Amino acid sequence: MGKLRVGVVGASGYSGAIAARLIAIHPNLSLAFGTSDKLVGESLGAHLGVRVDDGLRFVGNGTAIEHAGSCDAVLLATSAEVSMRLLPAFAELGKQVVDLSGAFRLEAGAYPRWYGFEHAAPAWLARAHYGLPEVAGPPPRGAVVSNPGCYATAALLALAPLVRERLVEPAGIVVDAKSGVTGAGKQSSEAFSFAEYADDSHAYKVLGHQHTPEIVRSLSRFATGVRLTFTPHYLPIKRGLLATCYARPLPGATAARVAECLADAYARAGFVRAMAPDKVTLKRVVGTNACHVGATADEDVVVSIGAIDNLLKGAAGQALQNLNLMNGWDETTGLDGLQRVSP
Amino acid sequence: MGKLRVGVVGASGYSGAIAARLIAIHPNLSLAFGTSDKLVGESLGAHLGVRVDDGLRFVGNGTAIEHAGSCDAVLLATSAEVSMRLLPAFAELGKQVVDLSGAFRLEAGAYPRWYGFEHAAPAWLARAHYGLPEVAGPPPRGAVVSNPGCYATAALLALAPLVRERLVEPAGIVVDAKSGVTGAGKQSSEAFSFAEYADDSHAYKVLGHQHTPEIVRSLSRFATGVRLTFTPHYLPIKRGLLATCYARPLPGATAARVAECLADAYARAGFVRAMAPDKVTLKRVVGTNACHVGATADEDVVVSIGAIDNLLKGAAGQALQNLNLMNGWDETTGLDGLQRVSP
Amino acid sequence: MGKLRVGVVGASGYSGAIAARLIAIHPNLSLAFGTSDKLVGESLGAHLGVRVDDGLRFVGNGTAIEHAGSCDAVLLATSAEVSMRLLPAFAELGKQVVDLSGAFRLEAGAYPRWYGFEHAAPAWLARAHYGLPEVAGPPPRGAVVSNPGCYATAALLALAPLVRERLVEPAGIVVDAKSGVTGAGKQSSEAFSFAEYADDSHAYKVLGHQHTPEIVRSLSRFATGVRLTFTPHYLPIKRGLLATCYARPLPGATAARVAECLADAYARAGFVRAMAPDKVTLKRVVGTNACHVGATADEDVVVSIGAIDNLLKGAAGQALQNLNLMNGWDETTGLDGLQRVSP
Amino acid sequence: MGKLRVGVVGASGYSGAIAARLIAIHPNLSLAFGTSDKLVGESLGAHLGVRVDDGLRFVGNGTAIEHAGSCDAVLLATSAEVSMRLLPAFAELGKQVVDLSGAFRLEAGAYPRWYGFEHAAPAWLARAHYGLPEVAGPPPRGAVVSNPGCYATAALLALAPLVRERLVEPAGIVVDAKSGVTGAGKQSSEAFSFAEYADDSHAYKVLGHQHTPEIVRSLSRFATGVRLTFTPHYLPIKRGLLATCYARPLPGATAARVAECLADAYARAGFVRAMAPDKVTLKRVVGTNACHVGATADEDVVVSIGAIDNLLKGAAGQALQNLNLMNGWDETTGLDGLQRVSP
Repeated sequence: MGKLRVGVVGASGYSGAIAARLIAIHPNLSLAFGTSDKLVGESLGAHLGVRVDDGLRFVGNGTAIEHAGSCDAVLLATSAEVSMRLLPAFAELGKQVVDLSGAFRLEAGAYPRWYGFEHAAPAWLARAHYGLPEVAGPPPRGAVVSNPGCYATAALLALAPLVRERLVEPAGIVVDAKSGVTGAGKQSSEAFSFAEYADDSHAYKVLGHQHTPEIVRSLSRFATGVRLTFTPHYLPIKRGLLATCYARPLPGATAARVAECLADAYARAGFVRAMAPDKVTLKRVVGTNACHVGATADEDVVVSIGAIDNLLKGAAGQALQNLNLMNGWDETTGLDGLQRVSP
Repeated sequence: MGKLRVGVVGASGYSGAIAARLIAIHPNLSLAFGTSDKLVGESLGAHLGVRVDDGLRFVGNGTAIEHAGSCDAVLLATSAEVSMRLLPAFAELGKQVVDLSGAFRLEAGAYPRWYGFEHAAPAWLARAHYGLPEVAGPPPRGAVVSNPGCYATAALLALAPLVRERLVEPAGIVVDAKSGVTGAGKQSSEAFSFAEYADDSHAYKVLGHQHTPEIVRSLSRFATGVRLTFTPHYLPIKRGLLATCYARPLPGATAARVAECLADAYARAGFVRAMAPDKVTLKRVVGTNACHVGATADEDVVVSIGAIDNLLKGAAGQALQNLNLMNGWDETTGLDGLQRVSP
Repeated sequence: MGKLRVGVVGASGYSGAIAARLIAIHPNLSLAFGTSDKLVGESLGAHLGVRVDDGLRFVGNGTAIEHAGSCDAVLLATSAEVSMRLLPAFAELGKQVVDLSGAFRLEAGAYPRWYGFEHAAPAWLARAHYGLPEVAGPPPRGAVVSNPGCYATAALLALAPLVRERLVEPAGIVVDAKSGVTGAGKQSSEAFSFAEYADDSHAYKVLGHQHTPEIVRSLSRFATGVRLTFTPHYLPIKRGLLATCYARPLPGATAARVAECLADAYARAGFVRAMAPDKVTLKRVVGTNACHVGATADEDVVVSIGAIDNLLKGAAGQALQNLNLMNGWDETTGLDGLQRVSP
Repeated sequence: MGKLRVGVVGASGYSGAIAARLIAIHPNLSLAFGTSDKLVGESLGAHLGVRVDDGLRFVGNGTAIEHAGSCDAVLLATSAEVSMRLLPAFAELGKQVVDLSGAFRLEAGAYPRWYGFEHAAPAWLARAHYGLPEVAGPPPRGAVVSNPGCYATAALLALAPLVRERLVEPAGIVVDAKSGVTGAGKQSSEAFSFAEYADDSHAYKVLGHQHTPEIVRSLSRFATGVRLTFTPHYLPIKRGLLATCYARPLPGATAARVAECLADAYARAGFVRAMAPDKVTLKRVVGTNACHVGATADEDVVVSIGAIDNLLKGAAGQALQNLNLMNGWDETTGLDGLQRVSP
C-alpha cells in the first residue's frame, strides 16, 4: 500500500518546516507539497535539509487548494484567518485536515474578543475535533482536527485529570507559563532580536492571551464554574514550554493523591509521563514529542507542572500524532526516533 | 572626615565579591578586609579587579572577628549558620552589621523547619531590622540589619502596597518566581554545569522554599491571615529575578487602582519604579540596584510583577543601600553609577 | 536475520548516552549492554529515555569484558587509558570495536607528550583504522576503528581535499576552532558551571592540544612537511563545533578552484556538503551527523571552514557511521532521521 | 569650573546610548543633547535610565548641528556617511569631536572599496587622530579623534607591540576574531532574531571586512610589508570580543619574550593588562573599559589574544577615554567605576 500523501500549507515557518521534516522521515507518509510565499520555486529537500522527491519545490500559499489533488491529507501551519477558510475547503474535498492555528478551538462568539475577527465558518467549529488525544480522546476517522495551542497543551495535560477527578476547585485556577521564543513564530522585529531578547524574561499579554478561553473550554468538559488566570512569559531559549499551575484543593487532594491521579491518567499514554514536579524540566522533553507532568499539594494549594517542546508536542509533533490516530496507526509512529536536544 | 571602613566576610562568593567592589567605588566607604578560605593571601585588588589598598589580601573566614578592629562596619556574605554567630559578635563590638544570609529574617521557632537548625541567638532576632527600606522603613542608626532574600525582595515590593491598602485578600496569594543561577551561589556540581543547566528551566523546592515564611512575615505587618504559595524556578541566565504574583481582588481593586497604588507607594523611592506589568522586564534592571514593579487586575485576580537583579537589589546592592541609610546618607550614594548590562 | 548486538562502555557520558540512543533507534542494531559506574542497576531505557529491552540495566565499567559474550560489537566511550586496554581485549574475542577515545589515533611515540602515558598496546595502533571515512576511506570489514577527535573531524574535512589537491602549502597551516561545552564531557567544576561559563569565550590549551598531532598525521597522508598550529576555544553553547582553517595558497588556488575542490571531494558523501564559507553555520548541522564545509581564497590565504555537531559527526554519530560501513550497510542507515535542533 | 558639555549624535543606538549614560555619570561632563529620529521628544533621562537634566529630550538627527551652540564637545555615533559630513562641521565650529564610525580611519583611496563611497572630506583624514591611545599615543588637545573599530582595537592591542619590537613577521598575519551581536548595532532582521541567532556561530564577510585595512594601516606605522587576513565570527552573546592573532615568529620570539613584550608595553596603561593567553577571557572584561591581552610562541607561530567589551573599549568607553585625554584628565576618569557583568 502506498504512503499517505500529506501537504503542508505554510512550510517555511517553524512549525510548518518541522512538520514537513517529520513527514519526510515518517514510514507511512510522504510529502505531497509545501507552500511558502517567500520560497516559491526553491527545492523543499535542500531548504529543509531532508530527503524528499527531488523535484519537489515550494509553491505559493495562495495556490494551496489547487494542489489538493496531489494529497490525501493537509496540515495547516497558517494564521487563524487563513486556516478559517482553508480547513472547510480541504475538508469538503474529502481531505484529512489538521489545523495548527487557533481558528477552530473556541466557540464562534469568542473570536471577536480573542482573535479580532468574526468567524466565517462557524458550522465547522462543532465538527472540528480538539486534537489533544490524552484529554479529548483520539480523533475519529474522518475527523477534521483542531490542533491545540502550545500553552493549552501543557496546561491541560497538567490540570485536566485533577479537575476531572474533582481534586481541585474549578474556580481560581492560575496558570503561570514560560515559553521559548519559537512559540512566537519567525520574527523580524527589534524586540525579538538577540541583542534585546537574550538573557531577559518578562510576562506579556497579561490577562489577555487567547489561550485562556481555550484552556477554560477544555476544562469545562469536566467541571462547571471554571475560572482561570493565565500569564505567559518569554524565556531566553529557542524551544521549550513550562506551565506551572495552581489550584485550590478539594477534599482528599493530598500530595500523594494528586501525584497518583496524574500517574493513573497517563499510565498508557505514549507521550505523557508523570513524575515528581521538580523533576519536570525542559531539557528532558525538548527535541521530542513528550510531555512531562508532576503535581503535589498542601492544605492551601495544588501545584501541577507540565513541560513540552512547544514546536513538537505543542505544535508539529502533536499534529503528526493526530494524523497517526486518524489513520488507525500507533500514535508514536514516526515520532519515537526523535532525540532530545540536551545530551 | 575619613571614610567608613567596611569588612566583607565571604568576599569570594558572588554577593560578597560584588559587595566588595561596590565598597571600593563608593565615595564614603573603604574596604577594610575581605575573607575567603580559598583565596587566603591573594590580593583583593587583583582578584576582584578593583583599585583598593595594594597590600590588602584575603584572610581566612575563621579570622573575621580578629579583624574587627580594622573596620567600622561589616557585611556578612556567609551561610545562615555562620552569620548566626558572627552578627552578635560584631554587633557586641559596636560595629555596624548587615547580614546577607537568612539567619535573622524569621522568628526563632521557624528555623528548624525552614533552615534545619535551632537558632543560637534568638535575642538578636528582635533587634535585627529587616532591611527592605521601601517596605519596612529605613534602618535606624545603630541598627543591625538583616538583608532580605532575593525572592522576598521582588515579591514584597510587588505585593506589600496592595496588601497594605487592602486591595487584595491576604489569603490565597501565589508567587511564581523565576531566577538566574547566581541566586544559588557558586556551584561545582554537575546539575549546575553549563551543559546541564543551559537552555533549561524547572521549578525547585516546590512548596518548601525558605523564602516563603520570610514573605509571609513581612506581609503580616499589614494584614492578618496571610496565606501564600511560593514556587521558585531557575532561568538559564546568570542574573535577574522576576516574581509574578497573583492575589484575589478585594472590592475596589480595579486595574487602574492597583496600578495607582504601586505608583503612589514608590513615588519617592530611589530605586523602585512602577510601570505597566508587561514593561517589567529583567533587562532594564540587571546590572543596577533598581526594582521595577507593575500591577493590573480583572474580576478574578490581581497580577503584580516585580523584577530585580538578584545580586544587587536582591543582595549586595541592597546591603549597600542599607549601609547608606544607616549612616544618614542618600540611599543611592555610590549606587547610582551602576550601568544596566543590556545595552 | 537478527540485529547486530552492540554494547556501549561508558554509556552515561554525553557521547556514550547518545550512542546508546542511536543504537536503540537503528533498524539493524540492538543495545546489548551499557556500562556506568554511577548508574549500576538502573534501567537503561528509563535513564536514556528510549525503548530498549525492559530488563536492561547498567553494569559497572569494570565488568565490560565479562559482557562480551552478549554482543557482536562494542563502542568504547571511555578515557584513552581505559580504551587502550579494552580495544585489544574485545578485538581478540572477535568483536567489532569502535573506540571514541584518542588511544589509537597517533603513533606510539607521541603518547607520552600528548596524552601523558606510554602506550600499552602499540601493535594495535597500526591495525586500527582511522575512522574518518570521507578522508581515510571506509573501514574494511573486520577492522577495529579509532573514531576521530571532534576538532580533528571538522578540521580535516575542511583541509584534507585542499592539501591532497596541492592547493595549499602543507606548512604554516592555522586551525582556529570553537566548540560547545559538551566536547569537554560531563563536568562538575566551578569553571564549567553555568554562572562562570555562560556568555563567555576563551582559548584553552594554547599550542598544546592533543588533536594537533592527530590532524597533522592525517594530513601527512597527502603531503610532506605538514606544520600546523591549532587553537581551541570554548563557545557558550552546548553543542556545535566550528573550525576556521587558514593556509597559504599554492599556484592555482583561486577562490573558484578551492570551492570546486571541496564540492568535488564530497559530491557523493552522505554527510558532508560543500557551500560558501559564510553559509557554514552551526545551526544547520547541530542535531545531525552532517558536516558543512566551505572555502575561499585570495592572494594571501586560503580560508576553509568546517562545522559539525561535536557529539554526532564529532563522536557518537560518526561511530555509528563507521559501524554501518564495517557491516556493509549504507553509511546513513539509522542516522538520516536525526533532526537539526534549530528550527 | 563648569562641566564640559557633550552632545551625542545617535544616542539611541547601542554605542550612543552607552556613551550618553557614561557622560551622565562622569564627574567632569554633562550631557548637552542627544539625537535620535525614532525618539524625538522623548525624555533622555527616562529612556536611558539615567539622571540628567529633566527637560532634556531627544532631538532629530538632522538637527544635530543646530545644537552645536549648547555643547563643547560631540560624540558621533552615526554611520560613516553621516560622520563624514558632521565631523568637519562640528570641528570647524571649534568643538571637540570623537567620531565612532569608520569615516576617518583609512586613507581616502580605500573608501570606495571598503565602505562603498567616495570620501567627501579627505582633508580631514590627515587631521583626525586615530584614537587608540595605547598604540597611537594620546590625542593632542584640539585634535579631532577617529575612534577605532571594535575588532581593530582588540587585534591592535594584541599585535602592535609584537610588530613594533620586531618579534613577528609583518606578512602572513591571521586575525581570527569572535564578537557578540551588539557589534552589529540594533537589528530588526530575521537573521538576527533570537530564534535564528542563539546557540549558533559562523564567520561572515570572509576576506572582506572593512576593519582589515584599518588594522593593516595601524600596524604599518611599525613595519613595512604588513599583510593580514582577518575573519570575523559571530558569537551567541550580547557583548564581548575576542581576537586570536597568529603571526610567524622572527628570531628571538620565544614564549617568554613575547609575553614580556606585552607586559612591558602596557605596564603603565590604565586599561590594558597582560596575562597568560588562556587567562584572556571575555567575562573578565565585559562591562568594563579593560582590554586583556596575552601571547605565547613556539617555533612555528606567535599566538596573541586580546579581549574587550565591544561596546566599551571597542566603542563608547574608548570614546570617553579619548575625551578624557583630550582634556588633560586621567584616562580612567569616570570609567573606573564600571563593573564587570559576570559576577
